[in-house]
Amino acid sequence: MSKIAILRQKAHGLPVESYADAVRERLPEATVTVARTPEQERAAVETATVISAGPFDDELLGHANEIQLFASIYAGYDHLPLDEFAEREIALTTASGVHGPNIAEHVIGAFLAFTRRFFEARRRQRERQWRALRSSELAGSTVAVVGLGAIGQAIVDRLAGFDVDTVGVRYSPEKGGPTDEVYGFDEIHEAVTDAEYVAVACPLTDATEELFDEQLFRTMHPEAIFVNVARGGVVDTDALTSAIQSNYIGAAQLDVTDPEPLPEDHPLWGFDNVFVTPHASGHTPAYYERTADILAENVRRAEETGEWDGLVNQVNLG
Amino acid sequence: MSKIAILRQKAHGLPVESYADAVRERLPEATVTVARTPEQERAAVETATVISAGPFDDELLGHANEIQLFASIYAGYDHLPLDEFAEREIALTTASGVHGPNIAEHVIGAFLAFTRRFFEARRRQRERQWRALRSSELAGSTVAVVGLGAIGQAIVDRLAGFDVDTVGVRYSPEKGGPTDEVYGFDEIHEAVTDAEYVAVACPLTDATEELFDEQLFRTMHPEAIFVNVARGGVVDTDALTSAIQSNYIGAAQLDVTDPEPLPEDHPLWGFDNVFVTPHASGHTPAYYERTADILAENVRRAEETGEWDGLVNQVNLG
Repeated sequence: MSKIAILRQKAHGLPVESYADAVRERLPEATVTVARTPEQERAAVETATVISAGPFDDELLGHANEIQLFASIYAGYDHLPLDEFAEREIALTTASGVHGPNIAEHVIGAFLAFTRRFFEARRRQRERQWRALRSSELAGSTVAVVGLGAIGQAIVDRLAGFDVDTVGVRYSPEKGGPTDEVYGFDEIHEAVTDAEYVAVACPLTDATEELFDEQLFRTMHPEAIFVNVARGGVVDTDALTSAIQSNYIGAAQLDVTDPEPLPEDHPLWGFDNVFVTPHASGHTPAYYERTADILAENVRRAEETGEWDGLVNQVNLG
Repeated sequence: MSKIAILRQKAHGLPVESYADAVRERLPEATVTVARTPEQERAAVETATVISAGPFDDELLGHANEIQLFASIYAGYDHLPLDEFAEREIALTTASGVHGPNIAEHVIGAFLAFTRRFFEARRRQRERQWRALRSSELAGSTVAVVGLGAIGQAIVDRLAGFDVDTVGVRYSPEKGGPTDEVYGFDEIHEAVTDAEYVAVACPLTDATEELFDEQLFRTMHPEAIFVNVARGGVVDTDALTSAIQSNYIGAAQLDVTDPEPLPEDHPLWGFDNVFVTPHASGHTPAYYERTADILAENVRRAEETGEWDGLVNQVNLG
């Protein structure tokens, strides 16, 4: 039977106990320990075969004598001691995909809020103005989704009923994808040129760093609604600021920025047509339930096969 | 060849010339006259076989000696001289359905704006606060759509990718419908009881007048997000105000109110969780194109058959 240690964490402000409860419900025969203090963490990792946490370091790993699987509660894993995991043949899984539904809802919501001019309507509401409001429409337009991973896919899924054309951008366009057209990152200009809506949901890599630069904002549709739920570094912040100041694009929703938090004196806070949210699109009340689904499935697989291999969201550390 | 008179109108603030252009493009052989003044209206209706307008009265109809079809640019037709149309066997068509896409986008946008807490995020943006924001999620919830006409259908279409259960309410539930479950208006309490989202898109009739009353708000889900894009009279305004004051429901988006405009001193303007828009969901830049589509199709049908009968959106005046 697995001994699962769940370490201190406050993902999305949710209490860690709800994660432990969700895991217990799915794996009634496992021993699930919650570590709430640094001392409890050290004790819990010593005997655990599975450790699930957000942050984790060499020092704690040094105490983990029985660990077989580190189940990250984050989608990313750059912050983890990957070399040590590889050396000790510890399996690593991520929570990739748990954010798909809510981030996609955030993106479609942002498209519609700008299209239907909700912020202007809300402003007028504060002044108790009842006055006809002209707005636009998503139907009949082109939506570009940059990055076709779990989040990009969830965005495309939700566009199904909106009568739009879709364009996807991914590393391996030859694989095809869920969008009407698929381009590679080296064809990003062609991909976005006709898109009235652009959602960015790709990882931050050498290929995507400052992908959205002055040149690309010049290529984009002059009324494009640009939504970034990827990483701030995918955008050249100064170029975006200039693009907004020059009306090169129609509007922007920035859930991520570079730097982050966005400094208080940054001009991007102040534009009517820029909507800033504090890296909030990932929030979902179902976070721990979905994370527990992945963990439980992986523990069941390992118990069946006797190997920590072929797991959901497993990172190849080879 | 049809002689089409297009009378003064400012539907959604769009210039009437764009309607005339859209009709000319679709019916290049027809004569299309635009009347911009009362005098031009009287002259234009005298020889027109087709008159397309919003407002229209007995007096103008008295000048219309050749009229075969009145093509209303509105979805409703209660304001028109229906008895005279019937007596003189003048066909009547409406613009029903042209608002489907944009009103549905408005509804889904409102659901998502509240669910993802965009107005709270926007408020914090004004204060340049970067602080984690907890929000909720549409996925996994139940959405009730009250009224399954063109607009209700368009709402249900757009929910296809959102992983929700849908409940519809219509006059003839035995017909079935696009939703997972279909109820009659006499079962409205059963229909909404589990719905976290409720969109109202039914006509105002004896059966729907003040349908949403104190009793129904008591039945509804305590976190329900309620969106009214139908008519203000479908809701008992005082009961809604009390429901908001008592947290009987989670939030409301009111695109229509009773009375309308909403009086400046009305408390519904001031609640954080009430979003008031000025009967704006019907706005679409594609309004005249869609209206022209219907008109052109009907003129073509009549020219083929020689009868102003069996038309798109024709009102039975029998």
